[in-house]
Amino acid sequence: MSLIIIGTVAFDAIETPFGKTDKIVGGAATYASLAASYFYNKVKIVGVVGDDFHKEDINTLNQHGIDTEGLQIKEGEKSFFWSGKYHNDMNSRDTLITELNVLADFDPIIPESYQDCEYLMLGNLTPQIQQTVIKRLKNRPKLIVLDTMNFWMDVAMDDLLETLKLVDVLTINDEEARQLSGEYSLVKAAKKILTMGPKYLIIKKGEHGALLFHEDKIFSTPALPLAEVFDPTGAGDTFAGGFIGYLAKVGTINFTNMKNAIVYGSALASFCVEKFGTEKILNLTEEEVTARIKEFINLSSFSIEA
Amino acid sequence: MSLIIIGTVAFDAIETPFGKTDKIVGGAATYASLAASYFYNKVKIVGVVGDDFHKEDINTLNQHGIDTEGLQIKEGEKSFFWSGKYHNDMNSRDTLITELNVLADFDPIIPESYQDCEYLMLGNLTPQIQQTVIKRLKNRPKLIVLDTMNFWMDVAMDDLLETLKLVDVLTINDEEARQLSGEYSLVKAAKKILTMGPKYLIIKKGEHGALLFHEDKIFSTPALPLAEVFDPTGAGDTFAGGFIGYLAKVGTINFTNMKNAIVYGSALASFCVEKFGTEKILNLTEEEVTARIKEFINLSSFSIEA
Repeated sequence: MSLIIIGTVAFDAIETPFGKTDKIVGGAATYASLAASYFYNKVKIVGVVGDDFHKEDINTLNQHGIDTEGLQIKEGEKSFFWSGKYHNDMNSRDTLITELNVLADFDPIIPESYQDCEYLMLGNLTPQIQQTVIKRLKNRPKLIVLDTMNFWMDVAMDDLLETLKLVDVLTINDEEARQLSGEYSLVKAAKKILTMGPKYLIIKKGEHGALLFHEDKIFSTPALPLAEVFDPTGAGDTFAGGFIGYLAKVGTINFTNMKNAIVYGSALASFCVEKFGTEKILNLTEEEVTARIKEFINLSSFSIEA
Repeated sequence: MSLIIIGTVAFDAIETPFGKTDKIVGGAATYASLAASYFYNKVKIVGVVGDDFHKEDINTLNQHGIDTEGLQIKEGEKSFFWSGKYHNDMNSRDTLITELNVLADFDPIIPESYQDCEYLMLGNLTPQIQQTVIKRLKNRPKLIVLDTMNFWMDVAMDDLLETLKLVDVLTINDEEARQLSGEYSLVKAAKKILTMGPKYLIIKKGEHGALLFHEDKIFSTPALPLAEVFDPTGAGDTFAGGFIGYLAKVGTINFTNMKNAIVYGSALASFCVEKFGTEKILNLTEEEVTARIKEFINLSSFSIEA
């Protein structure tokens, strides 16, 4: 029994109104696996890096109990590198540099020891690679979560639609939900998207929280209002990792557990943005996570009986 | 004991992607008093109209138990008229016509029978007029709620700051909170605004719901995701009216009741946008309101114990 997370493991250079970083460790699989590791101890990564990636950084993942056997290290090649600059409102950013490097011909390898996969998180990559991972698993996982972005809707919509047929949960943001469905209303958009394959749709709205759609049910969770958002990089991946990590822990897939999973994911994401990169989510205590969950309960609970 | 609502009583001509209206009855005090009337039966309006305003429209308010003794009717003058056109996203609109008419020299008169006021809703008007109403009440109401907008921050900031010192609750939207405080983060903005007079701050975020700030506490409520937003006109005033109407009904001002009041206000606002103008909120049944409240409970409740 394990949770496989596939996605980028990379270097980021980030500039925000609060400062800038040199190349630091980032990537969707890094954020998601760290977040998931707070709830589940059988997290396994599938990804690729170059030989510029530091052994200590892989050790850091291992120290969180994350299995990196499926993380390929390409000798003589360089890791994926992204550099971006956030605007003052922190809601938008400019990409300054994207160097695909090892990602350009990434062929995901699933080690034999990963074939016990019960939970699969497909981080944002080409729909083709995401589909390949599903096909290389001998048994269909109990739960497949897919994250994607507008870019793949622009350049690989057919592949994306094929891949969507194979998954249980889709996580996208509000603009992407509108683009994928052609509907402005998120309720109408969700209705359409839930006919494309996924049984659950999570629409991420950044500082406005997230919506979960399933059949005719809707759940809304706020984001924690923060005095300072230091660096939003990786918040969505941290959310997804916390979400699937919590579900792997409880082991039963239903709407009630999905709702709780979204709250846990939101709580982890609220930590992520408080420092640059993965800094904050590298060293959380159980007490900190519990206190944050309490903040979410206080934030959204009221006492009307109807 | 009564709830006084001061604000515009007006004609609107509205165009949305779903259609357009001729001159229909609108105005902040109209929406707010109708919403409040679902919870409280001593709602009294202060406002002004011209002799073009139809007797039946005043009768409609009276049939909802709304006292209109404080609604001045200016012979030979015309009512305030606003015309606007919503963009496809329904989140932004262009004002096509603003005719102040009777509003240009509005001097609010408080009838003697209104002096039992316990709850006061100051709808969006010049801060000077809002302040005058407070001063013309012999006893300070138990709760004063003030709504305002960016326009008064642009042209009458000093008056607004003076008036803010006199009120308990301020309702504004997120951009206005940022403008008033000079802070981008809503948490920092709220901290500053809560030193300006109000003990409670409600930040309205439209389709993203609302935030309530009080001391160090924050409450977040979602807006109900709707398949179709037909006409957003008056939603904010309906929210405010439902909010203060519910508080007037329960009679005790504390954070718990404030949170519930925000849910009731949000529920009423979710009805408002389903039809043009006041159409939907003219004829709600108790069952409809209760069912809508249940939807809000389902929408935001989860079952983590921490």
